[in-house]
Amino acid sequence: MTFSWPKNFYSDGIHGQLRRNPTKPDLGWLVSTKPARVAGVFTRNTFPAAPVQIDQQVLRSNQPVHAIFVNSANANAFTGATGLANAYETQKLVANKLHTTPAEVLVVSTGIIGEQLPMEKIRRGIERLQASAPLNLAKAMLTTDTTTKTAQVTQADYQISGVAKGSGMIHPNMGTMLGFIATDVTIKQGLLQQLLRELVDVTFNQITIDGDTSTNDTVLVLANGDDWQAEIKAGTAKYEAFKADLHQVLKTLAIAIASDGEGATRLIDVHIMGARHSASAQRVAKSIVGSNLVKTAVFGADPNWGRIIDAIGNVGEVFEADQLSIAINQVPIIVAGNAVANEGAATQAMQQDTIVITVDLGLGTEQGQAWGSDLTYEYVHINAAYHT
Amino acid sequence: MTFSWPKNFYSDGIHGQLRRNPTKPDLGWLVSTKPARVAGVFTRNTFPAAPVQIDQQVLRSNQPVHAIFVNSANANAFTGATGLANAYETQKLVANKLHTTPAEVLVVSTGIIGEQLPMEKIRRGIERLQASAPLNLAKAMLTTDTTTKTAQVTQADYQISGVAKGSGMIHPNMGTMLGFIATDVTIKQGLLQQLLRELVDVTFNQITIDGDTSTNDTVLVLANGDDWQAEIKAGTAKYEAFKADLHQVLKTLAIAIASDGEGATRLIDVHIMGARHSASAQRVAKSIVGSNLVKTAVFGADPNWGRIIDAIGNVGEVFEADQLSIAINQVPIIVAGNAVANEGAATQAMQQDTIVITVDLGLGTEQGQAWGSDLTYEYVHINAAYHT
Repeated sequence: MTFSWPKNFYSDGIHGQLRRNPTKPDLGWLVSTKPARVAGVFTRNTFPAAPVQIDQQVLRSNQPVHAIFVNSANANAFTGATGLANAYETQKLVANKLHTTPAEVLVVSTGIIGEQLPMEKIRRGIERLQASAPLNLAKAMLTTDTTTKTAQVTQADYQISGVAKGSGMIHPNMGTMLGFIATDVTIKQGLLQQLLRELVDVTFNQITIDGDTSTNDTVLVLANGDDWQAEIKAGTAKYEAFKADLHQVLKTLAIAIASDGEGATRLIDVHIMGARHSASAQRVAKSIVGSNLVKTAVFGADPNWGRIIDAIGNVGEVFEADQLSIAINQVPIIVAGNAVANEGAATQAMQQDTIVITVDLGLGTEQGQAWGSDLTYEYVHINAAYHT
Repeated sequence: MTFSWPKNFYSDGIHGQLRRNPTKPDLGWLVSTKPARVAGVFTRNTFPAAPVQIDQQVLRSNQPVHAIFVNSANANAFTGATGLANAYETQKLVANKLHTTPAEVLVVSTGIIGEQLPMEKIRRGIERLQASAPLNLAKAMLTTDTTTKTAQVTQADYQISGVAKGSGMIHPNMGTMLGFIATDVTIKQGLLQQLLRELVDVTFNQITIDGDTSTNDTVLVLANGDDWQAEIKAGTAKYEAFKADLHQVLKTLAIAIASDGEGATRLIDVHIMGARHSASAQRVAKSIVGSNLVKTAVFGADPNWGRIIDAIGNVGEVFEADQLSIAINQVPIIVAGNAVANEGAATQAMQQDTIVITVDLGLGTEQGQAWGSDLTYEYVHINAAYHT
């Protein structure tokens, strides 16, 4: 299926010379031709980038918006008053181009921290923005990503389409994560915001360590439907169906980011079952995908379950060793606290591209999931040489 | 200075065939010929290894002890009832050899998780233990360490000597850390315990991420003085002097562990100044040394201060961007929120073996420090191939 936007949306992505490589687009936008309700979730970093500060203001105004502008190569983070002025100027330039007001434009940046935006290039780039193939926007967002990331659900009466960017990250803090989702449903802003926050917690936030976010992380959802007869209201079957579809889009994008981890060779998909609480299951899952030693073991195709046990034990909750079961790609490793002599099969199972680690805590019925990638030589190579 | 134990202590370290390599000792002990007061700090992991469970019992009894037995190559962790029985049996074998009681013997294991101790080898090894050069114990504790780690302070009226083991770790959870410190001062057990906990918080715990500890982490201090006329009492000048010396020994061992990080090429030494609270300074310091992206940048000798800013912002406290100053090996990078065009000098400064990152938060007068190592290809190599 070719990736497309819902009706009354278009996008563009061009090379605005922020990067030297002319084949890599670095500026883009997503435009809604009708006023769109917007929901957003942002970084919790103490030093949010200038564009994040502006977008948070836009969201607080509780007014519809018309566009998201994005540039890569420069994060406009830790750039002080000049950086903030540049982000406002960018917002204004986009508004002028679209004949709308600055308060209806969201701005997003990703890239290097601490350098001022090259405003002349930004200005000339915005002048050139039009409508082109949706994938161009997905390309313009990327930094060290190796693939574009898109997801789409199409129903009879609505469509949800999303693009994302994430440099993957073995230890996921600081690799900026961006997600832009567009849909043509009719929904109030407050309900959309509530829904986004709930779903981000079990998708995008399950590929990050809590509290460890980059200065620029941003997930935005635009909903531009205006058929208030067909409004999606909480507690209805229609709401549940839309929620499931939005969940699917966010989860697909989150897994795409985890799969494209910097230098990654394998996706790690952790399922926790048998937890007392879902929050506990989520924490355990995250602890496992966040462990450098689990990640290096996965790179080495080494079924070193001691490291999985250790990551579980590091969550700091009370678990019962003799209730615990672990399987790797369905090969049992621990059954009710006892190691199974299955090393050959387990090593074999770890040759696959996706490593599903299933942990049954044996304490309840709640579940949780998290995703990550392995820690490789290439990760070190990429990150030891990014800046210079 | 040759490493030695205080009076009335001796140690040994031998090859007990737990490892194949006959040149690497894997069993050892530290013996006090007089009853020794003992203090201990252990892993907070939910699944403490069998020997940790036993040592915690010994400490709760509040009675003096005579020996610490240690084996490497096998952690006796996640080994169920059999593992616990084996640890008790080890304790008993050592007690028999020393003609003391099991309750006076501490047992410590480090190595692979989930395999039962080879008890016949342990038994034969204990039979052979005697007294030999102190460094043999330091060697017997090691796993992936590349150097023995010792520290010593000698005063007119007492001596403090310590050995440690730590496989370094870029992300320090799960690389087991062991430290055994012996001193001939006379001090009550309760005061010794309080002192150890306070000093571990600013030394060993500043090379680990809070709550992220291996199943086997153990730091033990034995004090075998029995001159109660010369007892070290809280609040005295003698107490402060002893505290400073013990701090020095623990800090030296902690830095030795950080320096010997798996695959490390550089020590990272983070000083935080100008914090509102010392706990805040400690957290910021740990966040910086715990960041994979800072660690890879240090490996690449890349003064990528954006990653330092990001790690500070991830602590989740309120800081002021325009109060922040950062220097790398004394080269100013950020001064009161403004980047200094110093990239050449900064890159030069990062060629050194020790990278001192100094951060002035500009908010108060409190300080904190943490230590870590860079993240290298060799780290990935070691950890992708440890088990198999």
